[in-house]
Amino acid sequence: MEYIKDPRDIEKNSFEIITQELGEKTFPEREGKIIKRMIHTTADFQYADITKISKGAIDSGLAALKEGCSIYTDTRMSMAGINKRALKQMNCEIYCLVDDPEVAKEAKERGLTRSMVAMEKAAKEEKTKIFVIGNAPTALFQLCQYIDEGKKLPSLVVGVPVGFVGARESKDELIRRNVPYITTLGRKGGSTVAAAIVNALLYMNL
Amino acid sequence: MEYIKDPRDIEKNSFEIITQELGEKTFPEREGKIIKRMIHTTADFQYADITKISKGAIDSGLAALKEGCSIYTDTRMSMAGINKRALKQMNCEIYCLVDDPEVAKEAKERGLTRSMVAMEKAAKEEKTKIFVIGNAPTALFQLCQYIDEGKKLPSLVVGVPVGFVGARESKDELIRRNVPYITTLGRKGGSTVAAAIVNALLYMNL
Repeated sequence: MEYIKDPRDIEKNSFEIITQELGEKTFPEREGKIIKRMIHTTADFQYADITKISKGAIDSGLAALKEGCSIYTDTRMSMAGINKRALKQMNCEIYCLVDDPEVAKEAKERGLTRSMVAMEKAAKEEKTKIFVIGNAPTALFQLCQYIDEGKKLPSLVVGVPVGFVGARESKDELIRRNVPYITTLGRKGGSTVAAAIVNALLYMNL
Repeated sequence: MEYIKDPRDIEKNSFEIITQELGEKTFPEREGKIIKRMIHTTADFQYADITKISKGAIDSGLAALKEGCSIYTDTRMSMAGINKRALKQMNCEIYCLVDDPEVAKEAKERGLTRSMVAMEKAAKEEKTKIFVIGNAPTALFQLCQYIDEGKKLPSLVVGVPVGFVGARESKDELIRRNVPYITTLGRKGGSTVAAAIVNALLYMNL
């Protein structure tokens, strides 16, 4: 079996293939970097059509990263997929509370999802300026509510929950808010997609 | 905003929607559970067409889980997505070596991917009977080679690397081996898909 073994070649070739297959579907440079990384992580070209980036969202996200903000993720999977070395170089921190035993206890008592209770706690952290939601619509609904109530004004919401119950609706709510966001319309998204978006931003800054 | 907040209801409703939209496309019970969980995690119905499960693979995987085997994953993302409580109940362990500093050093010296060196180490562990590859074609190529050389005979290979360089080819190699496997033909797959397959097996056993 002969195959490419150099990871840099693999990534370079992958992005060339993606650009080629996108054909006449082109994007502004930075938007393109994000969307191509989403396709790279899913092999799903539909992301070229369903990704929506609000005006100024990339600048706002990059500025928060440059300030060394904290990033909250709704799943340990998204957290695991985000490049830790790049984060460290920017003095950014990342955390996820969904597995916190306190959160689990409180969620059970209140009949809420752990994602909602975790989001409640994260939204109170002043340094947390980027919210990355790749899984739980309930977390995104919750965040929208905090935005409405003026309790939180994120620098960027990467809101790409996946699924059949609430995912689409939660993203429809997000795009109605006056907040910098990157999202995917409809059902698709997920933890790997969320991580890909954040990594694309991190690599722009390095 | 009104939305379903009970996580059990969310999952139940999701699987009902998936079953409904699959329509006349039906599967044997256990295959169906796996495929529907893959769709659940991606919102991508193409998985109904591209998923290939070798004869006896589910039985072989379940038997290894019942024995309390170790599971190797090629990424921390897949590891993060697999249900730890379910694993613990079955006395199974899970690990990933791709971030191991020794592995990184050796990969650099030998001009290989970290995934390949990590796979080399994992294949030597006798207790490791299930290999979960959601990201790195190089890891799957490597494993195929060990199978050919009789160095490793896994109880199950969950081989679903995603991407544009080597992913399809590595899976084509896998299905030519006489080894129990679950795979996705073509480019699609990924860490979330890999985790979904393992979780579906774990939930069958509980």
